[in-house]
Amino acid sequence: MLITLTTDFGYTDPFVGIMKGVIYRINPQAQVVDLSHGIPAQNIMAAALVLRQATPYFPRGTIHVVVVDPGVGSTRLPLLMEFEESYCIGPDNGVLSLVMEEKTPGRVIHLSNPAYKLQPTSATFHGRDIFAPAAAYLSRGVAPETFGETIKDFARLTWPAVIKTGTTIKGEIVYIDGFGNLSSSIGANDLKELPGHKLRIKLHDLSIPGLAANYAAVEQHKYLALVNSWGLLEIAVYKGSAQKRSGATIGDKVEVTWVP
Amino acid sequence: MLITLTTDFGYTDPFVGIMKGVIYRINPQAQVVDLSHGIPAQNIMAAALVLRQATPYFPRGTIHVVVVDPGVGSTRLPLLMEFEESYCIGPDNGVLSLVMEEKTPGRVIHLSNPAYKLQPTSATFHGRDIFAPAAAYLSRGVAPETFGETIKDFARLTWPAVIKTGTTIKGEIVYIDGFGNLSSSIGANDLKELPGHKLRIKLHDLSIPGLAANYAAVEQHKYLALVNSWGLLEIAVYKGSAQKRSGATIGDKVEVTWVP
Amino acid sequence: MLITLTTDFGYTDPFVGIMKGVIYRINPQAQVVDLSHGIPAQNIMAAALVLRQATPYFPRGTIHVVVVDPGVGSTRLPLLMEFEESYCIGPDNGVLSLVMEEKTPGRVIHLSNPAYKLQPTSATFHGRDIFAPAAAYLSRGVAPETFGETIKDFARLTWPAVIKTGTTIKGEIVYIDGFGNLSSSIGANDLKELPGHKLRIKLHDLSIPGLAANYAAVEQHKYLALVNSWGLLEIAVYKGSAQKRSGATIGDKVEVTWVP
Repeated sequence: MLITLTTDFGYTDPFVGIMKGVIYRINPQAQVVDLSHGIPAQNIMAAALVLRQATPYFPRGTIHVVVVDPGVGSTRLPLLMEFEESYCIGPDNGVLSLVMEEKTPGRVIHLSNPAYKLQPTSATFHGRDIFAPAAAYLSRGVAPETFGETIKDFARLTWPAVIKTGTTIKGEIVYIDGFGNLSSSIGANDLKELPGHKLRIKLHDLSIPGLAANYAAVEQHKYLALVNSWGLLEIAVYKGSAQKRSGATIGDKVEVTWVP
Repeated sequence: MLITLTTDFGYTDPFVGIMKGVIYRINPQAQVVDLSHGIPAQNIMAAALVLRQATPYFPRGTIHVVVVDPGVGSTRLPLLMEFEESYCIGPDNGVLSLVMEEKTPGRVIHLSNPAYKLQPTSATFHGRDIFAPAAAYLSRGVAPETFGETIKDFARLTWPAVIKTGTTIKGEIVYIDGFGNLSSSIGANDLKELPGHKLRIKLHDLSIPGLAANYAAVEQHKYLALVNSWGLLEIAVYKGSAQKRSGATIGDKVEVTWVP
Repeated sequence: MLITLTTDFGYTDPFVGIMKGVIYRINPQAQVVDLSHGIPAQNIMAAALVLRQATPYFPRGTIHVVVVDPGVGSTRLPLLMEFEESYCIGPDNGVLSLVMEEKTPGRVIHLSNPAYKLQPTSATFHGRDIFAPAAAYLSRGVAPETFGETIKDFARLTWPAVIKTGTTIKGEIVYIDGFGNLSSSIGANDLKELPGHKLRIKLHDLSIPGLAANYAAVEQHKYLALVNSWGLLEIAVYKGSAQKRSGATIGDKVEVTWVP
């Protein structure tokens, strides 16, 4: 059974390796995949977005563990969410909630059963003591309801609003990848009734004409806009970094206008 | 059989991937887990500490390989250490020695048998040519004594002294994680007879009152002290970096006083 | 069956994790090894070199996937190359071509069959939609010719010329590792007829006497030259970074002279 790990632990410390040790002690047959451990420290939105984009590509039954958890050890609950195709495990701080947007979770379970936690349970590393053991026992076939009681209320993040008025669509930058490509909150669906070649895409004082078919459709070091592999409107620079060139950051406004 | 890898090779070069290739050529059934490849270059103490903290969480029989090895190719010996619960493989420079502190090793074996090295054996990459093959053959069931002769003397690091005098405990910073949390050499055992709420924890001109139960126990961006998941006294900033805020580095003095 | 991944995706984004999800959905038995995801962005030469150095250490039949692909979605073809010992999958931009230098590929196949791509196929992430599925289906036993037609022409990089004249050998820096060690294009074969102790190795205004047996053969913080684990002439600083000390970059000239 596949278990994925997404954290803000980085690659310097042994925290992720320790979580894997815990998993393999409980289930030597588990298969563990790193989704990302480079989530910016305590950035719940980035982790939620990564999870939302990645889950559709994993096998049915995959268990996704997310540990971006500034409130570790406080009153926020550790959760297990059932979906039709997968399970998500993590803190109740919204990090699991963008996956939920499109799929209603089956049950949401509070991981309260001490039999499935490492003892003693630290107040600072629930990834090791609660989330990794839960994933490992679940992958061994322990039934979800065994881990604790079903709850109804949990934290939700909201996808930044995409506002359409007349010939204009307004959104914002939601993710910047390592190449400096700028993903906006505007999705392919928001654009589908509009003819791509008649659009202008605006960011700061930039105005990019039309949607490109791919990065190489413009000369190198030029800006372009396209619908990316996540189905989001993206602003990029061919063989360069749109982030470095524009100085854009998460939350900056993006506007699409249709020139009839 | 599980093999863990800990190196200062970083994530840019293919050195770790090449070690895995060597392992899988010798034992296709091996299961390899990365503990950390972000050990600061040639920092033997950091690697030794990571190994000490991580080994208790891995399954019985796990083989831990550590390659932080500034003396590669020189006279320092390549070693295999037997413990009751695990094996450790690495250079004789002290990197394996903090694991040993609490457990006496069974045998310490010099990896001298050329039959278990890649030939020709380079003078600059024993991770590939000596340590990875040793781990792979050991995981296939080759008996430890087959790899070479037993030796009695080997390099040891010492845990920085924790000095108790009257109502004061003195230690130092031994590890700084990627969040900027400062782990000291003072352990939970050193503190256990003292009432946590009556302590003051001092670093530079900082004086932190009492031990917190978790990071979220103080307001955000405030300092706190707690016993962390490694059982060490830690100084942290909630939703911030104590390292950046204080400028502290490895070796800085930490003092705990008890105010009756 | 072993699949290796080499990309310039870095460790922050979930792109590599998503490729693994795609692979495991198609072949749950696949075993995936990361070779490097820290190739400098769009640096085809660095990826080609990493692949050339690493492939000899992997088991027979390993499938190597390389995604360093600035032309993604444009007219450059996605390729599968057969070798006697392994397979290589990646874009037709030269990234696979240094492996080829020493081994003539069997067939070179254009990955054109839509049945082995994710549908819809994005124009920006062929790692997910074309290369990962091809590797996964190949690892399940799908015959190479099933993926598309055989082609004859493909992009080739050339190894920087090593020029020998009289008592001088001229080459250049081709790779700089994370320790700051400088690998040159000059190979062990180029040097084998020369007595190591009578050589002088020159870079900028540096002149290093003789070849060292290993890093520890000089005092710490001193320059040395040696034949490294890749069989290349390397300039290094013991317990330091030759890159930082010398400011050398890829392409800088290295000269070896023989003082009879």
